[in-house]
Amino acid sequence: MLLTVQWKDDSLILIDQTKLPTKLSYVYCKSYQDVAAAIKQMIVRGAPAIGVAAAFGLVLAARRSNSRNIGSLLKDLNKAYNLIRSTRPTAINLQWGLDRLMRKIQNIQSVSKVKQIMLDEAIQMAEEDIFINRSMGSIGEILFSDGDTIMTHCNAGSLATVAYGTALGVIRSAKESGKKIHVIATETRPVMQGSRLTAFELQYDNIDVSLIPDTAVGYVMTKGGIKHVIVGADRILHTGHVFNKIGTYQIAVLAKNHNIPFYVAAPLSSFDLKNDIDDIVIEERSKEEVTKIGKKNIAPTNIKVINPSFDITPPDLITSIITEKGIISPPYKTNIKIMMNTK
Amino acid sequence: MLLTVQWKDDSLILIDQTKLPTKLSYVYCKSYQDVAAAIKQMIVRGAPAIGVAAAFGLVLAARRSNSRNIGSLLKDLNKAYNLIRSTRPTAINLQWGLDRLMRKIQNIQSVSKVKQIMLDEAIQMAEEDIFINRSMGSIGEILFSDGDTIMTHCNAGSLATVAYGTALGVIRSAKESGKKIHVIATETRPVMQGSRLTAFELQYDNIDVSLIPDTAVGYVMTKGGIKHVIVGADRILHTGHVFNKIGTYQIAVLAKNHNIPFYVAAPLSSFDLKNDIDDIVIEERSKEEVTKIGKKNIAPTNIKVINPSFDITPPDLITSIITEKGIISPPYKTNIKIMMNTK
Repeated sequence: MLLTVQWKDDSLILIDQTKLPTKLSYVYCKSYQDVAAAIKQMIVRGAPAIGVAAAFGLVLAARRSNSRNIGSLLKDLNKAYNLIRSTRPTAINLQWGLDRLMRKIQNIQSVSKVKQIMLDEAIQMAEEDIFINRSMGSIGEILFSDGDTIMTHCNAGSLATVAYGTALGVIRSAKESGKKIHVIATETRPVMQGSRLTAFELQYDNIDVSLIPDTAVGYVMTKGGIKHVIVGADRILHTGHVFNKIGTYQIAVLAKNHNIPFYVAAPLSSFDLKNDIDDIVIEERSKEEVTKIGKKNIAPTNIKVINPSFDITPPDLITSIITEKGIISPPYKTNIKIMMNTK
Repeated sequence: MLLTVQWKDDSLILIDQTKLPTKLSYVYCKSYQDVAAAIKQMIVRGAPAIGVAAAFGLVLAARRSNSRNIGSLLKDLNKAYNLIRSTRPTAINLQWGLDRLMRKIQNIQSVSKVKQIMLDEAIQMAEEDIFINRSMGSIGEILFSDGDTIMTHCNAGSLATVAYGTALGVIRSAKESGKKIHVIATETRPVMQGSRLTAFELQYDNIDVSLIPDTAVGYVMTKGGIKHVIVGADRILHTGHVFNKIGTYQIAVLAKNHNIPFYVAAPLSSFDLKNDIDDIVIEERSKEEVTKIGKKNIAPTNIKVINPSFDITPPDLITSIITEKGIISPPYKTNIKIMMNTK
């Protein structure tokens, strides 16, 4: 099993996802600045993975701090918190991971205790992530039948989590329970998480996968045979609006048009009950993601580019949301609240 | 003005579109085999451009033939016809261009006369193409208003025709009549005709253009501001079904969902009144178009790929079809027949 996020030798070890699929290599983060840079550059990406990586970033800030009293340590932690928090605005798990650690050390007065508690909690979060994904998988896999062809977008797999994956975790779980599953993975321009990551990790695990350009989603759906669409989420609002990788919304529209069920798989840590749509910043990334592949120019260099990293899928396009505690069906406003309260 | 297809020095000169946008260079075709290879490799592409290029391919076959009698010349021409015809199956203009030349020399018995008539006819076709595009432009541009933002897919521009373009010809014409037009161009994976060609040629002509990944079509539409979508066509059936670059169909579905008018601009030579949907072959192109950019692998090398080059947009998603003889509105079955008879 691919381990995307690992704590070892007093360092956070990340699979370098910018090098995939040609090279499986690792980046060692020895400071919180290393972690912030890794998140910003998408060496690690995927909402659950960056949530846990962010937590380890705070752990590194604590462990590298020379502060002898708690006030000074908290100052160092706040600095790290703000830097890590600023790297990517849309995925809620980033903030969730940081806040969970900060809450855990409230009212602890010993510097060494704080450092230990933070490390224990981050390790706990990493272990929980795998457990949660396995739960989500076994709950969600009942939706799939033997022989199904399932479309997915971006990478909501091992590489988007500590391990196992959310949407791809459900597919893994279906396979583990003996069902033959075929996956159609979209390329997911511009960063190509589909071709670089999903294709890679499904092949790695011997799950049948075919790659399509993002332009072929509609055509492939007209051909019949796609039984389900399943994606992950970077943030789910109390209304059921799902923020996820750019392109998710249009796939949901197309799925609805072709009467194909559209599922979202996400842990409860991806839910945001406080904010409304307009409160959330959609990250706009650099134009070079669109105009270059590696060092090669694929568009005129001085061209204007619109490059939003996420879009919003409204609840009426979503058949159901798979979580580690159960499957949420519409009406989402009511049922998300109920599910969160049973947490 | 960019001249995509030119006859000069007893050769067919083509802009090498595989080198754009980084280099504006030309390929000299001195034989029909050169022309067939250029079409196959997409050095020249776009339905109207390959129609005219194919015709010049036959001209080259005639001019290079050593045949002294008409029977032997026709044998040479048939060989060339079959090779060129086999390069790309979906665009009807390829066949249209070849058939128009062959019809023209029916019953001509002199070898030298046949050679001259073929050359004259091909030159006439190239000139007609520009004239037709300008007509289409001035007819279609009344649909656009000053300040409109218009989305287009693939490249239905100068580079898809001899010059001026079909869909982009309508945009050029709107600009020439004094309207300020903003264009949103989709990248158009996998061959990236949007980022490589449309972005290039609109910039070349000082028309305002922004590039988006194919995944951002739905998101950009939800933001409002897109007033129209306009695309070209590789083949239009008597029913109004439009075969065009992969990704067209899903943009049409999204346009309908957002109440955005969806126009197709195509010359009458792109209409096919004989065949039905199932008669038309959708070209499947090589997986390397999806897995590589230049020499760089962007997906696992042994991954399965589905790479259809075209899709089919049904008539109920099309607001109207702009031709050089007028605008065709639904019901298409009736109105296409009427338009073709006034030819």
